[in-house]
Amino acid sequence: MTHDHPTPVTVLGLGPMGQALAGAFLAQGHPTTVWNRTAARAGDLVARGATRADTVADAVAASPLTIACVIDYDAVRAIVAPAADALKGRTLVNLTADTPERARLMAEWAAERGIDYLDGAIMTPTPTIGGPAAVVLYSGPEEIHHAHRRALASLGGTSAYLGADPGRAAAHDVALLDLFWTSMSGLVHAFALAAAEDIAARDLAPLAKGIGALLPAIIDEFAEHFDGGDHPGDQSTILSAAAGMEHIIHAAQARGIDTGVLSAAQAVARRAIDAGQGGDSFSRLAEVLGRPVPAP
Amino acid sequence: MTHDHPTPVTVLGLGPMGQALAGAFLAQGHPTTVWNRTAARAGDLVARGATRADTVADAVAASPLTIACVIDYDAVRAIVAPAADALKGRTLVNLTADTPERARLMAEWAAERGIDYLDGAIMTPTPTIGGPAAVVLYSGPEEIHHAHRRALASLGGTSAYLGADPGRAAAHDVALLDLFWTSMSGLVHAFALAAAEDIAARDLAPLAKGIGALLPAIIDEFAEHFDGGDHPGDQSTILSAAAGMEHIIHAAQARGIDTGVLSAAQAVARRAIDAGQGGDSFSRLAEVLGRPVPAP
Ligand SMILES: NC(=O)c1ccc[n+]([C@@H]2O[C@H](COP(=O)([O-])OP(=O)(O)OC[C@H]3O[C@@H](n4cnc5c(N)ncnc54)[C@H](OP(=O)(O)O)[C@@H]3O)[C@@H](O)[C@H]2O)c1
Ligand SMILES: NC(=O)c1ccc[n+]([C@@H]2O[C@H](COP(=O)([O-])OP(=O)(O)OC[C@H]3O[C@@H](n4cnc5c(N)ncnc54)[C@H](OP(=O)(O)O)[C@@H]3O)[C@@H](O)[C@H]2O)c1
Repeated sequence: MTHDHPTPVTVLGLGPMGQALAGAFLAQGHPTTVWNRTAARAGDLVARGATRADTVADAVAASPLTIACVIDYDAVRAIVAPAADALKGRTLVNLTADTPERARLMAEWAAERGIDYLDGAIMTPTPTIGGPAAVVLYSGPEEIHHAHRRALASLGGTSAYLGADPGRAAAHDVALLDLFWTSMSGLVHAFALAAAEDIAARDLAPLAKGIGALLPAIIDEFAEHFDGGDHPGDQSTILSAAAGMEHIIHAAQARGIDTGVLSAAQAVARRAIDAGQGGDSFSRLAEVLGRPVPAP
Repeated sequence: MTHDHPTPVTVLGLGPMGQALAGAFLAQGHPTTVWNRTAARAGDLVARGATRADTVADAVAASPLTIACVIDYDAVRAIVAPAADALKGRTLVNLTADTPERARLMAEWAAERGIDYLDGAIMTPTPTIGGPAAVVLYSGPEEIHHAHRRALASLGGTSAYLGADPGRAAAHDVALLDLFWTSMSGLVHAFALAAAEDIAARDLAPLAKGIGALLPAIIDEFAEHFDGGDHPGDQSTILSAAAGMEHIIHAAQARGIDTGVLSAAQAVARRAIDAGQGGDSFSRLAEVLGRPVPAP
């Protein structure tokens, strides 16, 4: 579905995600200008109809809307600072992941320079972009989100506007990426441990998906515990979890596999046990994590 | 669906899981005998028709099939050792979670005493037991699994027999619980971080489920990388992941939230980056985890 007159869009940053974003704009018929520190990465997109700009100032001057998506906000600053004049009166949507603090500072920086600024966070991998499974969160001035909602819809899927605080999207992003990267760390560790017992990753995969399928019910259960401040251990306890983690750590150590992540996770469980909360649900640990660590 | 003559079954251990197992046997009409170190926990089950035994020897003598499900194998040993004579010529199915090593030792212990022994691992939470979503893995002598398959089917869902090596179920179990407990650690941390930004757990929950929904495709992708020994970073790289983890660690530190788990995860990513593999897919870390840690 293309719009009648798709707005021109500029994309700064052509890592895997920047390329996916630019590709989605192109696919929806937006005149798309791209820029990347390493210019050669624009090749594919130019072949698909994008215009490569030589400078950031040229790139942002080509469109009312510029999307930045690079490795972190330091890189965003380094890229856009020399082009601040060209951005004045235009819109910068920053889809780079970083902390809420840095999102708020970036919004201040933009405001001081007369740049309309919207912060955002992409919650799904590159292959989803432009399709129904994409999830992108936004926060900042509502009128800016509203003005560009049609162009941003070209990125596909669900687009959620979370409010005027420019740090709101990043606040959700850090929490969700926390779950994501920690789970990914567990996944690679599971493959390593399985391999040491001659279980091929492809044989573990269907069972690992079964573990993933447990998450939705547990997420709802833990959310209820946490919001309610009550963590009943009637289905499973921290003591039982700590024993389980102990076995995994033993098994990993016996096979020469790093145990840093699980040892750190177990240390949090131990703090709860030491505080007399071993009989509570694992959800209690969300609260324990924010307590000052007692002196040893 | 009940069988015509459901076999008597004994359940040793009445924590949340032991209670669920005994409840499922009762629901399917098995004469069910229960024993627990803390006898009072049998109350509910007795009200539903179970028989409480005073000693483990009495409990196992009541049935050809005994299920043990307690906190770890040390506890299983402590419970069944005094009843080894009573178990002779009968079957013990150990559904306690522990390491492959301990499962193999337990099988040896049972063999020396003329006890038919099957090892198993339960991959789903207590509310699933007896219903279609239950997943239980077994390994050990095939004829023992075959002889008791009807009674074991009362636990519901999918029952997978993984082969004669008694450590096989536990080998899968440690790898899958590794993914499970690590993900759970990420989940409670995500709730803690969100709460510090005034995001209620119930508001984060739908988005957290969205993160969980990414797992199946990533599990297949990483499994292919790992089994093939090739970790292309065309969709996302270790360098990008390390930057992402850095933001989460910063955000957590700024809010007084423990960062042990993510710092340990990031240290593994750094080892890959230091080895020149920062441009590879995160799946590469499954291999890095098994490498000796270089001296600092
Ligand atoms: N890939 C995903 O699946 C995914 C999913 C959700 C969110 N995200 C987020 O999207 C953002 C981009 O991710 P990505 O996967 O495209 O890869 P990335 O490795 O995070 O970022 C690569 C981009 O950053 C640029 N860059 C790095 N350092 C720079 C610097 N000092 N100055 C200027 N440019 C610099 C790179 O330019 P060069 O080409 O010149 O090196 C490249 O354009 C990240 O915040 C990431 O967390 C990614
Ligand atoms: N709950 C779940 O969702 C779940 C899911 C999958 C697998 N599992 C596995 O199932 C097994 C049982 O788990 P659970 O949730 O029922 O709770 P648990 O806390 O792991 O185990 C509690 C049981 O262990 C007994 N026990 C502990 N120490 C003992 C000792 N030294 N001597 C004798 N008995 C001892 C307890 O007896 P007392 O009542 O006398 O303390 C109780 O019967 C574990 O291996 C667990 O990993 C549980």
